[in-house]
This record gives sequence, C-alpha cells and structure tokens, in this order.
Amino acid sequence: MTHLIAKSARLRSTPYTKRIEEYGVQSYTVYNHMLLPASFKGIEEDSRHLKNNVQLWDVSGERQVQIHGPDAAKLTQLITCRDLSEAKDYLCYYAPIVDNNGKIINDPLIMKVGEKTWWLSIADTDVLLYAKGIAIGMNLDVEITEPNVNILAVQGPKSFELMSRVFKDIDKLKFFNFKRFDFQNHKFLIARSGWSKQGGFEIYVDHDEIGLNLYDTLMSKGEDLNVRPGCPNLIERIEGGLLSFGNDMNMNDTPLECGLGSFVSFNPKIDYLGKAELEKQHKEGVKRSLVGLKLKLDKIEITKALPLKIGADIIGELRAACFSPDFGCCLGIAMVQTQYQSLEKKQTLLVDGEEVESVMTNLPFNK
Amino acid sequence: MTHLIAKSARLRSTPYTKRIEEYGVQSYTVYNHMLLPASFKGIEEDSRHLKNNVQLWDVSGERQVQIHGPDAAKLTQLITCRDLSEAKDYLCYYAPIVDNNGKIINDPLIMKVGEKTWWLSIADTDVLLYAKGIAIGMNLDVEITEPNVNILAVQGPKSFELMSRVFKDIDKLKFFNFKRFDFQNHKFLIARSGWSKQGGFEIYVDHDEIGLNLYDTLMSKGEDLNVRPGCPNLIERIEGGLLSFGNDMNMNDTPLECGLGSFVSFNPKIDYLGKAELEKQHKEGVKRSLVGLKLKLDKIEITKALPLKIGADIIGELRAACFSPDFGCCLGIAMVQTQYQSLEKKQTLLVDGEEVESVMTNLPFNK
Repeated sequence: MTHLIAKSARLRSTPYTKRIEEYGVQSYTVYNHMLLPASFKGIEEDSRHLKNNVQLWDVSGERQVQIHGPDAAKLTQLITCRDLSEAKDYLCYYAPIVDNNGKIINDPLIMKVGEKTWWLSIADTDVLLYAKGIAIGMNLDVEITEPNVNILAVQGPKSFELMSRVFKDIDKLKFFNFKRFDFQNHKFLIARSGWSKQGGFEIYVDHDEIGLNLYDTLMSKGEDLNVRPGCPNLIERIEGGLLSFGNDMNMNDTPLECGLGSFVSFNPKIDYLGKAELEKQHKEGVKRSLVGLKLKLDKIEITKALPLKIGADIIGELRAACFSPDFGCCLGIAMVQTQYQSLEKKQTLLVDGEEVESVMTNLPFNK
Repeated sequence: MTHLIAKSARLRSTPYTKRIEEYGVQSYTVYNHMLLPASFKGIEEDSRHLKNNVQLWDVSGERQVQIHGPDAAKLTQLITCRDLSEAKDYLCYYAPIVDNNGKIINDPLIMKVGEKTWWLSIADTDVLLYAKGIAIGMNLDVEITEPNVNILAVQGPKSFELMSRVFKDIDKLKFFNFKRFDFQNHKFLIARSGWSKQGGFEIYVDHDEIGLNLYDTLMSKGEDLNVRPGCPNLIERIEGGLLSFGNDMNMNDTPLECGLGSFVSFNPKIDYLGKAELEKQHKEGVKRSLVGLKLKLDKIEITKALPLKIGADIIGELRAACFSPDFGCCLGIAMVQTQYQSLEKKQTLLVDGEEVESVMTNLPFNK
C-alpha cells in the first residue's frame, strides 16, 4: 500500500532537495531526521541504470558527527570496536559504534580529517547525542557538532569518467582513501566510497552554493554518460550485501552477529566500550548471525521483520528483501540461529507463515 | 509537491499500522524511527473532526525511554531542567531535556512509574543514546531500555464519554495525572494528556494483542460518537501553541528561548546539565524567543525554516505555519529577536523575501 510523506521542517530538506524534486524524485525515506530519496523511476529501473551508467545521489542524510579537541581520538576509539590507534588522515574506516554491552548502535565511516578532528559519517541514529553523553559523563575535552556537510555521492561504473572531467587527478584516488580536491576555488573533501558496489565517490560538500554549482556541473558534463539523479538502491544494496542499520542490524545485535568480525579488534593496547562482552562472544562463538536467503518468489515487500520457521521451530527473522531481476528470485537478509544454518541447500522455510522454497547462503550473494 | 514514503523495517511499523491502513491513513511522517500518521482526510477536515468528536491516535512513535535502577532518579534529574526532586508517582511532568550548554535536545513527558523506574515519553531524538552515554560516562547504576509500549491516544471533546464506556472510574482522573486501569484483565497505564487542546487520554499499551482488542473496542463503542482514527494535527496544534521539537525548537535553542521558563528550575537543591548557562541567560534575559505570527495569506506550506525580515534587517525565522480556517488567516510559529518583537501591531514582514501583512503575538494564539 502506498502513502504520502507529510513534510515539515523536522524532516529536514537538503541543499539539493529543490533540484531532485525538479528532476522527479518519486519517494523518500527519512534518515537522521532528513529527507533521503528512495526512488526516481522505480527501484528496478533505478538499479539497472546505476549498474550501467552514473548517478548523482543526494545522501545529505548521512550526517557528519564532528568530534574535535584534545580528547577527540580517545572518545572516537572508546565508542568503536575497530582499532583506530594507527588511523591515517587519508583513509576511511568502516567502524561499528558499540555500547557498553557490545551491541551495535550505528555503523559509520570514520575519518580523521585533522590532527584533533574526526568525522563520523553516520547511519540513522543520533550518534551525536551518544557521543555527547559520554563526553559529558567522562568530562572529556571535546566539542561535538554536526557541521553543515551534505554529501553528494557519484556512483556507477561511469562515475570515474565523470569525476575526471571535473576534478584534476581524481583518478589517482584509491578505494577508501580521501583527499581534498578543488572546484571553483573551494577545496572539497572527496572519498572513493559510497553505498553501492558499482564504484564511485562521496563528495563532502561543506559549501551550499558552490555545492549546487557542482551538482549542476556534474549533471551537465555527464549528459553523454547518461547521468541521472539517483539514490541508494534497495535491490543493488541487497545483491551486494551492503548492510543497512535499522533494517538488517539493530541495537539488539552485536557486530559479530552481523558478520562484522573483521572490524572488531581485540588489540590489548586499545580500550573501547563492550570489549569484554565482545571478547567473550568471540571466544564462545555467536549463536545467531546474518545470512542471505534466495527465495523462490516473484515479489516481496518488507515493512517489518518477518518470522522465519522450519516446521514448528522459529529459526530467526527476515529483515530485508527484494526481487532481484538479475538473480531471478527474491533475495533476503535474515538473522538466523547458527544451529539452523545449512548453506547452499534447498529447503522449505516458513516466511511469516507462508511456505517458500529457499536457499541459505553467505553474504554477499553469489550468482 | 507530494511524494511517496518508501517503507522499510527501519521506519518501524506499530501494532496498529494494519488497522489505520485499513481505515485509510493518507500520509505518514517519521518519528523516532517509526511511522506516525499525519493525515487521514486532509488536515483541515481532520482538524474539524477532532474539535467536535473523538479520535483514536496511533502515537507509538512517542517512544518510552525507561530508566531503571538505583541511580535512575539521579540520571533523570541530571538531564532535565525541570525540578523532579518532589516528583509524584501519579503525575506527568513536561520536562525539557538539556545538554551541558543548556540547549534543548528533546521535550518529553516524564513519569515516575515505579520506585526506581522512570519513563520519558519522548519527541523525535534518540534520548536513549544520550542517557546511555551519560550513564556509561558517569558509571551510573541504571538500565536504560525502550520497552514495547505503543501509545494509543484518545483525543477530542467526546473522548471522556468514550473512555468512560470502557474504563471504570476514568472520569475521576485529573489533568496530567496517570493511573493504571483494567481492560480484559490487563492493567494499562493511562494518563489524562495528549498532544491536542481538545482534551483526552494517552493509553500506554504494553500488550500488543490486548492493545488491538482495545483499539477495536474503542472504535466499536464510539460509533455513535463518530469516532475515527486520527493523528496529531498540524492546524490544531499550531492554533493551540503546542510546540513541536524539530520544527519550532531545535538543538540550538534553550528552553528559555522557547518560552519554557516555567519548566526551568533554579532550585539550589537540584543539579542538572547546563544549569549555570541557563541561570546566566535567565539573569541577562533572552535575545530571541518564540512568538506567534498571524499572516494575511490563504495558504502556506513549510518544509524548512524560512528567513524573516523587516526591510533589510533579518529578525528571525518562521519555523512552522498553516492556514487556520477558524482564524481565517495563516498562523505561524517563529523564532524572533526580542528587539524586533512588537506584539499586536500590524506590520509588513518579508517571509522568504515575500511581503506579508502580519501581526506578532504571544503563544498560544488568541482569536
């Protein structure tokens, strides 16, 4: 069933909202109290276009939490289980944010953007309030703010060609590296990153007006590349196994249960919240984890987690899913008890009570 | 311009979502990562109906942050500027949540629901993460959780009659009091409160199944009262001067600037974050504050704060507004510098560059 979104100042617009509405955005979601486009011509058509061309994404909703000051490194390390002790000021770190029980409460990219300044490019929870609370409680010497940064992502196989036409030497930027590049005499921080598997860049736009000029320049210089406005795409992100906090993961999960073990450090030299709990879980092994599901269905729409059963046994829940034209079936991401995980085997699952022929698989999906 | 909302598990459904969609909800907003209905038959018709009848509101998005444990009272007091030192376990306290600079970060109703248990019925920011951060940082002995409580509000002049048909002795419940009442052998906490000026109740439903029975019972017993599903109404709330965090107020404001001085305590016996900053501002006087605006316009739609000028001078910003059929003009809520506040005087304002005949007034509005 489709419904309208009721707009108000509380669901913040972005500097690009006017542009994307002129270009015909179809639906929005809300992300960090901000409008985030969800489709332009339907998610299947958007996905096809993304895989073959280049898109400009208004992902302003990926807000930056800036932690600045003498204790910035200490606080940033304290709230993530990833080892940041050797963090470089030109690398992006995918870093789960954890609480004192080792539960995940966000999964930002973290960048050390200055000697005493860190940016957390966050998923959809108020990390700013969490960081503030800890800083207040521990009396840390930091300032925590949300700078006026509105990310413009350039995604898709032709993003490299398009960006090269605008930014000098951008082709030398390596994956998950960031650097400042000039446009109209303004230095924009640009990372080779983005929430798709098609390659691309994220431009951390900290100047609204020049940012709009940049938007228009990219649209006009990309005309022959079939550039279009776009947005994070449900189909493409599930096919690629890109996790979505609040959908696939929530505050009752640990990073280990979400398959993020490689971002959980047990380096004895660092200290972070929930480390003991995660060490214990790591030693004992997780009792449930995220898996992929290939479901023999023509369509599916998930608006809440659906219970998964084998016979009478509850084995977990399906948290996100979509029909994938490329795979010819529905793909889902599910939290499933490890004792019920039998990979690459055809079996009948009960999805919200309905029998569905299924294959459980690792993430990301392989064809 | 109208757009669809893209649903996903991240924008959580409520136990009543199926019902309100069957009854024809028209638009949603998102509140605390949850779907909150915004209109059923258009906000003017919804407003008229609310003022004359009774409505059932799915306001599950008003999540409860539960703070429980030996240090619960200490932590709860620490984060609000309202004096809770004498809090009774049957009263609701409207209580701004503040940070260490005295800025407002939420404006919940707070209830002491048990000897060591407090509920904060929150507006749209992750107070749970803020409280958790402080508790972790100060090593407080508390558990902070979001219980499965989904508020069903019964609002409108006929709400008293309807509720009396279902709950014994509910007519004895005084304004901003709460008490537990029986329905199908389950005790529901009910407060005489709600985000309208038409009177009513909020039922803190902590049992999904009996909650749905209650929903259906209220709908069926209210048939002759013209009961309908409804929701917080933009027109009615602006007319009544009910403030909306994220719209009229944001994290750059203090409670004093928002006209919430009566909820800011300077009792020397209590301690809370930002108290010194608020005392200073109280002594010096605020430099800006919220006012009402009557605007000679037939319609207005606010999707972001609009700049307000008198001639060349920027005097503030318009944060929320709507056309009010009862007032026969548009009503707005604006943050305006005190030096430019001249109440009850006709003047021409520039609203986002457009000349508009206006009258500035105190909140709430008087006809």
